[in-house]
Amino acid sequence: MTRIAVWGFLMAKAKKTPKKRVKTGPKKASKKPVKKVAKKPAKKATKKQAKKATRKPAKKATRKPAKKATKKPAKKATKKPAKKATKKPAKKKLKSVRVQPIKPKATFKLLRRVADVKKYVEEAKKKRKRIALVPTMGALHEGHLSLIREAHRLAHVVLVSVFVNPTQFGPDEDLDRYPRDLAGDRRKIRASGADAIFAPDAGEMYPDGFQTAVDVMDVTRDYCGASRPSHFRGAATVVAKLFNIVRPDIALFGQKDYQQLVTIRRMVRDLNQDVDIIGMPTVREEDGLAMSSRNTHLSPAQRLQATSMFRGLRKAKRLFESGERDAAELAAVVLDLLREERDLEIDYVAVVDPDRMERIPEVERDGIVLAAVRVGDVRLIDNIRLGPTKSRRR
Amino acid sequence: MTRIAVWGFLMAKAKKTPKKRVKTGPKKASKKPVKKVAKKPAKKATKKQAKKATRKPAKKATRKPAKKATKKPAKKATKKPAKKATKKPAKKKLKSVRVQPIKPKATFKLLRRVADVKKYVEEAKKKRKRIALVPTMGALHEGHLSLIREAHRLAHVVLVSVFVNPTQFGPDEDLDRYPRDLAGDRRKIRASGADAIFAPDAGEMYPDGFQTAVDVMDVTRDYCGASRPSHFRGAATVVAKLFNIVRPDIALFGQKDYQQLVTIRRMVRDLNQDVDIIGMPTVREEDGLAMSSRNTHLSPAQRLQATSMFRGLRKAKRLFESGERDAAELAAVVLDLLREERDLEIDYVAVVDPDRMERIPEVERDGIVLAAVRVGDVRLIDNIRLGPTKSRRR
Repeated sequence: MTRIAVWGFLMAKAKKTPKKRVKTGPKKASKKPVKKVAKKPAKKATKKQAKKATRKPAKKATRKPAKKATKKPAKKATKKPAKKATKKPAKKKLKSVRVQPIKPKATFKLLRRVADVKKYVEEAKKKRKRIALVPTMGALHEGHLSLIREAHRLAHVVLVSVFVNPTQFGPDEDLDRYPRDLAGDRRKIRASGADAIFAPDAGEMYPDGFQTAVDVMDVTRDYCGASRPSHFRGAATVVAKLFNIVRPDIALFGQKDYQQLVTIRRMVRDLNQDVDIIGMPTVREEDGLAMSSRNTHLSPAQRLQATSMFRGLRKAKRLFESGERDAAELAAVVLDLLREERDLEIDYVAVVDPDRMERIPEVERDGIVLAAVRVGDVRLIDNIRLGPTKSRRR
Repeated sequence: MTRIAVWGFLMAKAKKTPKKRVKTGPKKASKKPVKKVAKKPAKKATKKQAKKATRKPAKKATRKPAKKATKKPAKKATKKPAKKATKKPAKKKLKSVRVQPIKPKATFKLLRRVADVKKYVEEAKKKRKRIALVPTMGALHEGHLSLIREAHRLAHVVLVSVFVNPTQFGPDEDLDRYPRDLAGDRRKIRASGADAIFAPDAGEMYPDGFQTAVDVMDVTRDYCGASRPSHFRGAATVVAKLFNIVRPDIALFGQKDYQQLVTIRRMVRDLNQDVDIIGMPTVREEDGLAMSSRNTHLSPAQRLQATSMFRGLRKAKRLFESGERDAAELAAVVLDLLREERDLEIDYVAVVDPDRMERIPEVERDGIVLAAVRVGDVRLIDNIRLGPTKSRRR
């Protein structure tokens, strides 16, 4: 494996461009932007689902995604992409079904090389297939699977990338112990009906002499960007590469990693990349904990304390809905709850503008509360939206 | 116009990846890598050529580019792209001629908006046209025109971008007085037989909130990168954008801006962009001065002194050909000549590895001598290749 140049702590800074509030009216008001999907506790759940998923394909294929998928956003989604699809004259010529049944495909492929993916994509593009990319770091859980299901609804070909990207880990972070299970991931992804996995090794993505980085500046400066210098640079760079390799029409990301989602959206817009970025609602365990591959590192006691994050966020949302607009007050209810936990170290709680990612003193119309904590040696993040639900696509 | 965030002087640094000499044998040995095309002095020449070009199309169209085009590299080029073309099954279905006659096109378009270019390109791609991009900052001279001619030989659709990119100028540099003449450029480009110009304004390329940069690290650290902090960051970013907007099959750059050429090649490889980068030989005035839009700023006396740069480089090459391998000795002959000029300030003279851009103590097989000087308030660069000529495409 190639040694990856650590991009270090000298993140480039830019003078900020003049601030101006961008007017982007919400399409539809809804009171529940973060959808809670009740689930069995992590480990058990993923196993069960994997089993279930492998069994499912035997049944009659349905045009709708699995029942578990959150219904509301799904409905909304069908409306919007249709708009885009009508723009593409290619659509009418398509013979394949718009929504594939969720069953493993005989043509399912595990691709390890960039050249193989390019060839694969080239073929699909020739047939005017709409391609979706779901970039992951593996260790798939229900959150990832919800992205894949939505990808099926929006595209003909679904490609899932599995790559634990070393450049988005700091030197003292958990790269080495980040859960890896390509065989398990392969099973789950195949069962999900995806068309292919792209699982390169680090040398394939960062060959000798690699030295290029994509920096999205303002929106990555604070919060996780402050705690994890070079993290977003690593994430933006690898996603830029994946977009160039796969040339997807759409790419799906979880809203749990909210700052990452905003960073990728900004990058795509700034670099004129032709990808629609879809942000999908956070999927949660039964106890409210946002699903994360890192949850498996928590002891039962730590797990209990970790749930205080979502409890705090929910409390802040209720306070907002009861009329509170002061950001400090809204943050305070989260902080108060977190401070009750003995083994929990608070990284940040911030109330920010959902696009510019700047702290706001007051939530005028919409905002987002971001939180990051450390429980034992596990870093966890979560967030909750205040105000009208925004469109998932911009 | 939007105010552009100045990316400032905090260029990100990377720990260097372990060095390993990459073996890339030259395809063909030749003793004259830098082709000298004798020309009239700058201003006059460009005017005359523009006239000539507009007259030419009346004559019978030839499949070969204008006589002026360097013959040797042209031959080589026809061989290599053929290789690529055979890979693309699209090629056989093409009805249009592979090489268009050089005459103005009735369909010639001036595009100002990104969306218009994307639409234009979309149409061309549908017809399976091979697209060439020639990125320029305008103020076109014979060097640019040689790129356009070669583009015609290698692609069906030739798009020339004209954009004086503010982010590649430092705060104390000559952005304001950089020559601009869109009307003249438009005439020349149209006469050259190109299909379209893309001439966006700064607000179109850097809308409010723009904050993303592409950094190519090691190869931009020294030489012009040291003298012009953030210059290559600006250049790489705008070229990455142009590549995403135009999605060209090939893009042509002059070898005069050698460090830029290496930077773009590195970026394309690192970010997995699908563009073949063609480096074209430096076109020179009759007195040997490398053509540059900045030459117009030189007084006759300064102009005379500026020519010492190429005289020095040529002398170094002769010394190399007579057997000298010591880089310090090779640089010394250039420095000695430059030091004789009263109004000339030396920025650097360096003998470097042509791929890694690292100084080499000895020219084993191949090397490149880079030079940069300041004459009055005009910064000029030039270079000469030592050793076998490398392929223009990698």
